[in-house]
Amino acid sequence: MSGNTFGKLLTLTTFGESHGISIGGIIDGYPSNISINKNEIQKELDRRKPGKSVLTTQRKEEDKVEFLSGIFEGKTLGTPIGFIIKNNDVNIKDYNHLKDKFRPSHADFTYEKKYKIRDYRGGGRSSARETVCRVIAGAFAKQLLAKEKVVIRSYVSSVGEILLDRNYKELDLLKSDQNFIGCPDPFFAKKMENEIKKVKNNGDTIGGIITCVISGCKAGWGEPVFDKINADLAKAMLSINAVKGFELGGGFHMTTKKGSEVNDVFLEKGGKTATNFSGGIQGGISNGNDIYFNVAFKPVATLMQDQRSIDNKGNEVKIKGKGRHDPCVLPRARPIVEAMAALTIADHYLRSKTNNI
Amino acid sequence: MSGNTFGKLLTLTTFGESHGISIGGIIDGYPSNISINKNEIQKELDRRKPGKSVLTTQRKEEDKVEFLSGIFEGKTLGTPIGFIIKNNDVNIKDYNHLKDKFRPSHADFTYEKKYKIRDYRGGGRSSARETVCRVIAGAFAKQLLAKEKVVIRSYVSSVGEILLDRNYKELDLLKSDQNFIGCPDPFFAKKMENEIKKVKNNGDTIGGIITCVISGCKAGWGEPVFDKINADLAKAMLSINAVKGFELGGGFHMTTKKGSEVNDVFLEKGGKTATNFSGGIQGGISNGNDIYFNVAFKPVATLMQDQRSIDNKGNEVKIKGKGRHDPCVLPRARPIVEAMAALTIADHYLRSKTNNI
Amino acid sequence: MSGNTFGKLLTLTTFGESHGISIGGIIDGYPSNISINKNEIQKELDRRKPGKSVLTTQRKEEDKVEFLSGIFEGKTLGTPIGFIIKNNDVNIKDYNHLKDKFRPSHADFTYEKKYKIRDYRGGGRSSARETVCRVIAGAFAKQLLAKEKVVIRSYVSSVGEILLDRNYKELDLLKSDQNFIGCPDPFFAKKMENEIKKVKNNGDTIGGIITCVISGCKAGWGEPVFDKINADLAKAMLSINAVKGFELGGGFHMTTKKGSEVNDVFLEKGGKTATNFSGGIQGGISNGNDIYFNVAFKPVATLMQDQRSIDNKGNEVKIKGKGRHDPCVLPRARPIVEAMAALTIADHYLRSKTNNI
Amino acid sequence: MSGNTFGKLLTLTTFGESHGISIGGIIDGYPSNISINKNEIQKELDRRKPGKSVLTTQRKEEDKVEFLSGIFEGKTLGTPIGFIIKNNDVNIKDYNHLKDKFRPSHADFTYEKKYKIRDYRGGGRSSARETVCRVIAGAFAKQLLAKEKVVIRSYVSSVGEILLDRNYKELDLLKSDQNFIGCPDPFFAKKMENEIKKVKNNGDTIGGIITCVISGCKAGWGEPVFDKINADLAKAMLSINAVKGFELGGGFHMTTKKGSEVNDVFLEKGGKTATNFSGGIQGGISNGNDIYFNVAFKPVATLMQDQRSIDNKGNEVKIKGKGRHDPCVLPRARPIVEAMAALTIADHYLRSKTNNI
Repeated sequence: MSGNTFGKLLTLTTFGESHGISIGGIIDGYPSNISINKNEIQKELDRRKPGKSVLTTQRKEEDKVEFLSGIFEGKTLGTPIGFIIKNNDVNIKDYNHLKDKFRPSHADFTYEKKYKIRDYRGGGRSSARETVCRVIAGAFAKQLLAKEKVVIRSYVSSVGEILLDRNYKELDLLKSDQNFIGCPDPFFAKKMENEIKKVKNNGDTIGGIITCVISGCKAGWGEPVFDKINADLAKAMLSINAVKGFELGGGFHMTTKKGSEVNDVFLEKGGKTATNFSGGIQGGISNGNDIYFNVAFKPVATLMQDQRSIDNKGNEVKIKGKGRHDPCVLPRARPIVEAMAALTIADHYLRSKTNNI
Repeated sequence: MSGNTFGKLLTLTTFGESHGISIGGIIDGYPSNISINKNEIQKELDRRKPGKSVLTTQRKEEDKVEFLSGIFEGKTLGTPIGFIIKNNDVNIKDYNHLKDKFRPSHADFTYEKKYKIRDYRGGGRSSARETVCRVIAGAFAKQLLAKEKVVIRSYVSSVGEILLDRNYKELDLLKSDQNFIGCPDPFFAKKMENEIKKVKNNGDTIGGIITCVISGCKAGWGEPVFDKINADLAKAMLSINAVKGFELGGGFHMTTKKGSEVNDVFLEKGGKTATNFSGGIQGGISNGNDIYFNVAFKPVATLMQDQRSIDNKGNEVKIKGKGRHDPCVLPRARPIVEAMAALTIADHYLRSKTNNI
Repeated sequence: MSGNTFGKLLTLTTFGESHGISIGGIIDGYPSNISINKNEIQKELDRRKPGKSVLTTQRKEEDKVEFLSGIFEGKTLGTPIGFIIKNNDVNIKDYNHLKDKFRPSHADFTYEKKYKIRDYRGGGRSSARETVCRVIAGAFAKQLLAKEKVVIRSYVSSVGEILLDRNYKELDLLKSDQNFIGCPDPFFAKKMENEIKKVKNNGDTIGGIITCVISGCKAGWGEPVFDKINADLAKAMLSINAVKGFELGGGFHMTTKKGSEVNDVFLEKGGKTATNFSGGIQGGISNGNDIYFNVAFKPVATLMQDQRSIDNKGNEVKIKGKGRHDPCVLPRARPIVEAMAALTIADHYLRSKTNNI
Repeated sequence: MSGNTFGKLLTLTTFGESHGISIGGIIDGYPSNISINKNEIQKELDRRKPGKSVLTTQRKEEDKVEFLSGIFEGKTLGTPIGFIIKNNDVNIKDYNHLKDKFRPSHADFTYEKKYKIRDYRGGGRSSARETVCRVIAGAFAKQLLAKEKVVIRSYVSSVGEILLDRNYKELDLLKSDQNFIGCPDPFFAKKMENEIKKVKNNGDTIGGIITCVISGCKAGWGEPVFDKINADLAKAMLSINAVKGFELGGGFHMTTKKGSEVNDVFLEKGGKTATNFSGGIQGGISNGNDIYFNVAFKPVATLMQDQRSIDNKGNEVKIKGKGRHDPCVLPRARPIVEAMAALTIADHYLRSKTNNI
C-alpha cells in the first residue's frame, strides 16, 4: 500500500536507504522445493554492480547478499525469503552539502513535501541503490521461469542519438554480455562507449533505450482488463529510476500505421503469427509469441558541473555532484529491467495456476 | 487479483461482457458526504458514446447509467457505489461467424487459451465496451479532484502521420471539445478527420496519440519505489484496449538528450521549475508542476476487409468485420484516458492522507 | 480496502443499502468452465429468506438473484460474476422515526460518526440484508468445493440457555434442515422453538450458537502465520452481523485442559488423528480431519418494546422497533455461516494451487 | 497473499525460521516524522523474552532488535522500517530426532503436506519465535496510538480452571506487570503460578485466557461489512500460535441472554453507553467505549513426556520434548496479544483518515 511491494502472488517488499545500515527485502509467494543456484544470483548482482569501469560510478560496494530465511539445504521452503545487503562504502561527507538543498530533477524536493523529513544522504530511499533488491528477487524469478523454458534477455539499443535500429530477431542477443555497454552489435557498442566518454568528460550525462525480449511464455498468461501483462510490465518499468517511457511490440511506431499493415495474422493452431507487432500479448494475455518492449531512460540528473537550484528556504544555490555517479545508467540498468520483467512474468505465471481446476 | 479491480484506496471493480445482460461496477473507497453531479457523469459517458458520427461504430447504445447504492439524497454515503449499464443494442448474429475463429490481433485466441471457454460475441469481456465503467468511475474521481483544483484535459495529438507537434502549453485545450476529433487545433482536426475518412473508405483503420495534461496536483502525492505515480499512470494507460505505449514528460525524446539539456531547475520554494521535462513527477511523487504524458494507440484490429486467420482447429479461414466498428478509436478514447488518469491521481491523493499525522 | 471485499484469490465485493434500489455484488477469481446449478443457489437464498415463519421478520422479499455477467451457456467464463437482487418490500415509513435517533446496540451511531452521513432506512449498509450477497457467493464456493468432495454443514446448537451439548459426530446433521430451527435433534428443536416464541411474545429477542462442520478438506490448505485458515474463518464469522465470538475445535474449553488431555495423536500417514481437539487445523493449515467451530450470536438489538436512547442532539428519546424483525436470527443465519465458511475454504483451496509447481 | 503480511495501510511482513540465521520483518505505511522510543520497543521484547523464570522455556535469546532502515536521527522517515533479530541460541541437536517425525498437535505434518519440504528444527516457520517480530511492530503501533491517547492493556484472566471471574473495570490493570504471571490480582496470580508449577512437574502443559482492553479509541474507526474492527481483531488473535477462540465484549455469554438484558443504552451525545456488552464496537466500527475481548489459548503441544505419533512413513513412534519449552504460554503471550491488537487498531486508525475529506 505504501509503494514498497511489487507483485500479487509472487511479491517483493524492499526496505533501505542508500546510506543506511543495509538494504534488503522479503520475497514471498515463491513456490517451495525449488533448488536455488546462489551463484546465478550473485552473477546478476555483479552485472549491476558499480565500479566495474571508468564509465560507471566508483562507489565500491561488494553487493554480497545474505539470505536469512526461506532456504533450507539449498531448496526453497515456500516461506518468505528474507535477505540483506550491507551498505559498506558509505561516504556521508559527499552529501552534507545537500542537507538543505534540492537537486534538480531528483526526488529531494518531492520527498521533503510528502514526508516533511528525508534522509538526504545520496537520495535516501529514492536512490537507485534500492534496485539491488530487485535484481536479487528477479534472479529468483528467472530461476522459476527457467523451469518453464522462459528466457529473458535485454540489450542497450540506443545511447543518446546512437540508435541500433534493427529488429531484435536480426541480432545475437547472447553477444550483449560481451562488452561493457551491453549492446549485441560490437560496432555500435564502441560508438556508444565513445559517446558516453565524451559526455562524461564534459561533466554531463546521457540517456538511452533498453530493449527487452521475453521468449517462451505459454499462451494464456496474464489477466484481463486492469492487470494486463503489458499494463503490469509498463508499471514495472516505469517504477525504475530514470525511466520515462515504455512501448510494447510495435509501440509508438504503430500509431502511424493502418490496421492492415500491423495486424498479426495467425499461422497455426498454436498461435504462431506471421508478424508480431502485438509484442506477444493480446487483450493483456500472452499469445505464445515473444514479448518484447522498449524502455526509455532519461539522462542521469546528477551532473559534475554547476547547476542552479534552490535550498529549502527558497534561496538560489549552486549544486554540483560530488559523489560517485554514472554518466549513463544504461549499461548497469539491463539486469534491473530483466529483473522487473522476470518478477512480472513469474507473478502472472503463478496467477495462471488458478484459472482452471 | 483477477485483474478486474483498479486502485488501492479508491477502487473500481468492473464486470460484464460486451453482449451480456449488462455491464457495471463497484466504486469503493470514495469519501462520504460529497455532492455528486450526475449530469457531469452522463456528459462524460456521452463523450465516449458510439454512434455520434459516421466515423465511429454505429452500435446504438444509450449508455444510461443506473446507480444502485452508495448515494443518498444526492450525496455519497462512503459505502460502495454500485452501478449498471444495460446492453441494449445486442446483435448477436453479427458474431455467430466468429464462434470458432480467432480474429487477428484480438483477444479471442488468448482468452480461449487462458480460460478454455469464451463468450465470442463481440469479444466478450475483452471488448472496449468495458471502458464505459471506467468513464463512470473516472467522472466520480474528477469530481473529487475538482475540490482540490485538479483539472485533467486530453487531446488527440496525432492520427496516423498527422502530428500536432506543439507543446501543450501553446494550445487552448478547451477547444478540444469543439470538434469531433478532439484536437484543439481546428486545422489539424480537419486533416485528421479527412485521414480517418480515407482510411474508413478503404475498410481500414488507423492509430494515433492522445496527450493528457493534469494540472493542480499538490507537491507530495505519489509513493516511492514501486507505486510511483508515473508507474501507476503507465499501468492505467496500458490497461486500455489498443494502447501500446506511454511516455511521461520528455519521454522517449529524452533518451537522446544530455542531462544538462533536460534537468528541470527549481525556480522557487514552491517547486516551480524552469522547464518540465520530468512531467511533474520526481522519484514517483508529484512536484506541483503539470503532469503530462502521451498514450500510443495502435489501429483498431477489426477491419472491413478480408483477413487471413485460423479457426480453433487450426484451419485457415477468412475473417471480415461484420459488426459496427470504429476506423479510429482516438476521438472516443479521450474520456477513457482522462478517466484512468483521474482514478490514478485520486487514489494517490487519498493515499497521501496517511503520510503525516 | 474499504471493507466491502472478502477473500484474496476468490473475492466477493458487495454493495447496497437495505432500502436502496438493489443490493448486489461481484464474485471474482472463480475458475472458468464450471457448470453452475442456479437452482442450488436459489435454494440457499430460500434458506435465508425472511417471512417463512411467524418466528422471523415478515419483510417480504423474493430474493431472486439476477446474474449479469460471467456465466455463458451455463458455465463460468472465468470473468467476474456480477449480480443484483432488487429490494422490493421497501417500507420507508417504518424508519422515518429513526432519522435523527440512534438505536441502542445498532450501527446508527457509529456510521454517523465515521461518515458524517448515513442512510437511516433499516440501518442502510449496516443491515443484515447485505448477507444475501454472501449467501449467493457462498453457493458458488460450495459448488467449487463439491468437486473436491468438501461438504459444509451447520446447525443451531443453542438458543438462549437451551444447549444441545453433544459432539457433532453423534448427530445426523442432515436432519438440521427438517425443522424450522435448524437443529438436528427434533426434541431440542422443539424446545428452542418454544423459547423463541416466548421471547417474541414479550417483544424481546434471544441469542444462540451455530456449530459448523467442514468435511473433506485435503491436508495442506491454508497459509502460515497471519492468514491461518482459522484466522480467516474467525474473521469471516466475526464479520457477520450480531456475531460476538468464535472458537475452533476444542475452543474455550481447551483453556482449562492439560496438553496430555487434548493433544491429537496421529494414527496414520494420511493424518488421521485419534481425537480432534485441534479442529482440523494445525499451524493454520488443514490436516485432513474435519474442521469445526462454534459461532456466538448475540440477541437481535431491535426490540418490540420501548428502549431508552438518544437522538443526534443528545436528547433522551424512546425507541421501539416498528419494522419487521427477527426475535432470533439463528435459524436464518445458518446459510450465512456456511457461505462465509465456503468462501474462506474455497479461497484457501485456490491459494494452495501455487505452493508447488 | 502468502500469509506473511498483516494489515492494509499499516503493514507488517515477517520472515524467518526458528533456528535459521535470523528472523525479521518490514513495517510499512508507518507515518513519517514520529519520534521513536527504542527503549520502549526493547521493553516490550523483554516482556515476551524466554528464560526469565523457571516456568518458561530456558532458550536463551537476547532478542535484541537491529533496525536497518526507515528511522533517521530518531524519527521515522515514512519509508519501510526493516529490522532483524538474530537467532543465537540455536541448538539443532535438540531437533534432529524430529527430522522424520510429526509431533502431535504441531504444524509438522501440515507444513510437510503443504510445502513437501520443511525446516524441522523447532518447527521452522511455524514456531512461536516468529511472534518476536509482531511484538516489535506492535510497539511501533502502540507509540502511534499513544499520540491519540489510546492505551492497550492485557492480563491473564485464567490458567486452567483457575479463573479470575471479575469485570476488568474492577481490576487495577497496571498491577498485571507486577508478577510473573501477568494477573492483576496477586492472590490469583499465586494460584496460577502454583498450577503451572504442578503441571510442569508432571511434564505436562496447561491452557488459559488472556483478556485485553483497548481504551481511548475515537468513535468512527473501523470499516463496515467484511473488515469490521472485531473481525480484524478476531483474525489477529486467531493468527497467534495456540489460540483457539476469541470473544468480544459479552461474547459467548450473550448467546444465553435476551436483547433487553444486553442492549447498550446510549447515555449521551458522545456515545457513552450505560453498559458495554457490545465491547466498544457496533456494526464493525468503534463507538468510543472500551474495546475488550478474551483470547483462548490451548495448552502447549510439546510435552516433556512420551507421546504416541507417526513418522513420515506412517510408522508408529514415541515423541518426547527435548528442547526448551513453556509449560504455559500465557505469561509470555500478553505482549503478543497487545501487539496484534495495536497493529489492528493502528491500521484502522490510519484507514479512518480517508473517509471524509
